[in-house]
Amino acid sequence: HPRLLILKPHHTTPHERSDESARASRRANMAASSSLPAAVPALLLALLLAAFAPELAAAASSRRPTHQPPPFPAGLAPLHQRRAASSSGRYAASAAAATDNGTAKPFTAHYFQQELDHFTFTPNASRLFSHKYLLNDTFWRRKPAAGPLFVYTGNEGDIEWFTTNTGFMFDIAPEFGALLVFIEHRFYGESKPFGNDSYKSADTLGYLTSTQALADFAVLITSLKQNLSAVDAPVVVFGGSYGGMLASWFRLKYPHVAMGALASSAPILQFDDITPWSSFYDAVSQDFKSESLNCFSVIKAVWDVLDYRGSNDSGLLELSKTFRACKTVRFPSSLSNWLWTAFTYTAMVDYPTPANFMMNLPAYPVKEMCKIIDSFPVGADVVEKAFTAASLYYNYTGDQKCFEMEGGDDPHGLSGWGWQACTEMVMPMTVSNESMFPPSGFSYEEKSEGCFASYEVRPRMNWITTEYGGHVSFLSDFLMFTSEPS
Amino acid sequence: HPRLLILKPHHTTPHERSDESARASRRANMAASSSLPAAVPALLLALLLAAFAPELAAAASSRRPTHQPPPFPAGLAPLHQRRAASSSGRYAASAAAATDNGTAKPFTAHYFQQELDHFTFTPNASRLFSHKYLLNDTFWRRKPAAGPLFVYTGNEGDIEWFTTNTGFMFDIAPEFGALLVFIEHRFYGESKPFGNDSYKSADTLGYLTSTQALADFAVLITSLKQNLSAVDAPVVVFGGSYGGMLASWFRLKYPHVAMGALASSAPILQFDDITPWSSFYDAVSQDFKSESLNCFSVIKAVWDVLDYRGSNDSGLLELSKTFRACKTVRFPSSLSNWLWTAFTYTAMVDYPTPANFMMNLPAYPVKEMCKIIDSFPVGADVVEKAFTAASLYYNYTGDQKCFEMEGGDDPHGLSGWGWQACTEMVMPMTVSNESMFPPSGFSYEEKSEGCFASYEVRPRMNWITTEYGGHVSFLSDFLMFTSEPS
Repeated sequence: HPRLLILKPHHTTPHERSDESARASRRANMAASSSLPAAVPALLLALLLAAFAPELAAAASSRRPTHQPPPFPAGLAPLHQRRAASSSGRYAASAAAATDNGTAKPFTAHYFQQELDHFTFTPNASRLFSHKYLLNDTFWRRKPAAGPLFVYTGNEGDIEWFTTNTGFMFDIAPEFGALLVFIEHRFYGESKPFGNDSYKSADTLGYLTSTQALADFAVLITSLKQNLSAVDAPVVVFGGSYGGMLASWFRLKYPHVAMGALASSAPILQFDDITPWSSFYDAVSQDFKSESLNCFSVIKAVWDVLDYRGSNDSGLLELSKTFRACKTVRFPSSLSNWLWTAFTYTAMVDYPTPANFMMNLPAYPVKEMCKIIDSFPVGADVVEKAFTAASLYYNYTGDQKCFEMEGGDDPHGLSGWGWQACTEMVMPMTVSNESMFPPSGFSYEEKSEGCFASYEVRPRMNWITTEYGGHVSFLSDFLMFTSEPS
Repeated sequence: HPRLLILKPHHTTPHERSDESARASRRANMAASSSLPAAVPALLLALLLAAFAPELAAAASSRRPTHQPPPFPAGLAPLHQRRAASSSGRYAASAAAATDNGTAKPFTAHYFQQELDHFTFTPNASRLFSHKYLLNDTFWRRKPAAGPLFVYTGNEGDIEWFTTNTGFMFDIAPEFGALLVFIEHRFYGESKPFGNDSYKSADTLGYLTSTQALADFAVLITSLKQNLSAVDAPVVVFGGSYGGMLASWFRLKYPHVAMGALASSAPILQFDDITPWSSFYDAVSQDFKSESLNCFSVIKAVWDVLDYRGSNDSGLLELSKTFRACKTVRFPSSLSNWLWTAFTYTAMVDYPTPANFMMNLPAYPVKEMCKIIDSFPVGADVVEKAFTAASLYYNYTGDQKCFEMEGGDDPHGLSGWGWQACTEMVMPMTVSNESMFPPSGFSYEEKSEGCFASYEVRPRMNWITTEYGGHVSFLSDFLMFTSEPS
């Protein structure tokens, strides 16, 4: 009997767009196929970046040994330099769409006294911390029997970010009379067990693991249902990217708590040797290649040119101007990372609608990027082409005067992922010669050494598949996986 | 669809015993129905004793406030005072029965470098300890494909004890071409992470939890299969009593590691309010009542008489002689505990065959005890009746000159259970007025205070059902539960 469900979302084709009657049904389909995914796959990149960036940086530094690899999680910060101001846009739209039959309520914040360590009874284990969760009971049916709890299993950032970007749960809540619950992941947002000291060392960070997070969810949900006098209400968990991994693992490990799970863009098979290590970057490259061979070739060519021109100070100064850097760039790898982030993240948020999860982007942003590249004269500078295409990602609204190429902020507090990628979440990734990115490999030894240097911790390379499976197939039922059209 | 399987073992009726041809088929049935159970339910008592004994002691001390309750796990020690010498008897018989098609091999001992804490990455977490397991490959088929691994998920004692008392796995191994694996539970036998300091305090004992033990099993099994070049070999886990709880929980939590489980006499529903708290002692009482109402009444009457006569020193001296105590007994509750242990454990090992798991006993030992009580003249002393019946349990072979009533040894190292009963394994039990034991209640507050006094730890009262379920039903498949005929 089949246990693994792959749901292929409705794929809107261009010719449908001219048909007025098809537009309504497309909107309905999109509500199902894209509003949760829209919230989600960009987060995958937070995974991938942390998993991959050290090697990219290492590859870069092996050619330019004049600087150190960026700290974990490299590459994340630039993504968020301007999204804070508009982060609630998507939620507002989703709530509006979902409230045809009711009155929209903002979610309310709550705090649960959570135990630090569910799996030992050492003297520290029963220390309590405030575990944040959000509730929206606008649509919750209480009679004749309590409606379900739709629970988002929060991932590596503050919970408001995921809540305001997860339209799907709001969309379907009225139909199911569901209570919406969004639980923050320990060590993110306000749920830091040791406050500002939480990231200080392995003494505190040691408690940041997926298994503890899943137990947090189980304890909180069980307690919440008791407090709401709804112990018999069914629970369905939802999540995207790492949150989707957590949703599927939660259904596996706590079937008595959650009777179902919907996991969107959850790379639960990106461990050990289950999935070819080059798959991810091959897929990203293919997204661009399928739009235009020229687009693919320009991007593939730019890296060596960047390295060559950036090999001396005058070249870096010139490139800084080309890239409209706010400050003169010190390392050519900063420019590579900036481009790499734009192309990779854009492929991951290649939605058929305008969206604003990572950045404000038009519909089909990969296609738009390739249009930009293809519109240049044949002889134009390859760096200029790549920069202009990448600007679509960073500056679609056109209000950025200059770009922060090195440093940058982290408005959603994603930096804990670096620790997770150095402990449990070892997701080997390589870049093949056929991709449009600079080729790079993966070495368990280098990974381990890098993690020890950064955190004084060694990853448990095979732990995830031992704890959650993946080699045989994913053994759970009432579990639905969704993925992006691309 | 039904998910909970209850297998009722074949129940041998007395008239079958005179029929020669029925005897052979009965033997075959017993191999399936009693050899694993025989290994198992006595261990349940280790659970029950630790869960219950403090309250029994508290009840006793409330009537005789002159002494302290015995330390955790009260009542275990006397059980084992003379079983070490004959502990391998059952294994020898089972192995002989199982080797009609092969040559019996003794098991071999192995040690796996196991990590201390699978669920955190604190500086202590990756400390390694030697985790013991036993192998018997006598029956293992290697071609055309590797035969299954039958894995015993060890419980609260040294692994040799369970191995030599688990005939069922040896019985069926030839038919399945199975590799037999018996994994010791952390903190028992030789698998003590901190050596002799393991039980010193919560700093070390804190790592003694069921969740860590399950992860130990998963890591060890996964590694073992790789080392044996048998990654595709199916795994079925077996266990009895607490080991049966572990087997069923392992199937729930690690379905990708074990494709099936057989759990014998596993009280996974003896938590929270799932099972009526008086069920266990009501069932034990019913075992005696169904043999003879007089037997039940004598035992029910003895407790008050003991308390009355033991209330002064001359009475205790007299009782010590009646009970053939090696040393004069200091507390009347020691005599109550001694009797209580005999009646309770005998009910739990009330096998239809002679057996020697806890003690050397004849077939149907409850029936034999009641025969002893009923054979006394009506006017005989009730204490004399109860003592003589209990002697069947402690001295069936007749070689005990006197009995150690207070103190005693612990040859299988079961004392860690006291910690487990004070942390995760909170199994509320009471004795009702209708039972043959002195009535007693259960209080979460008293439990918590007792545990804090003993270990400076507070139990997590609802953790087991949150982590493993039980309220809705037990959500796992390919999981078989067996229970005793009584």
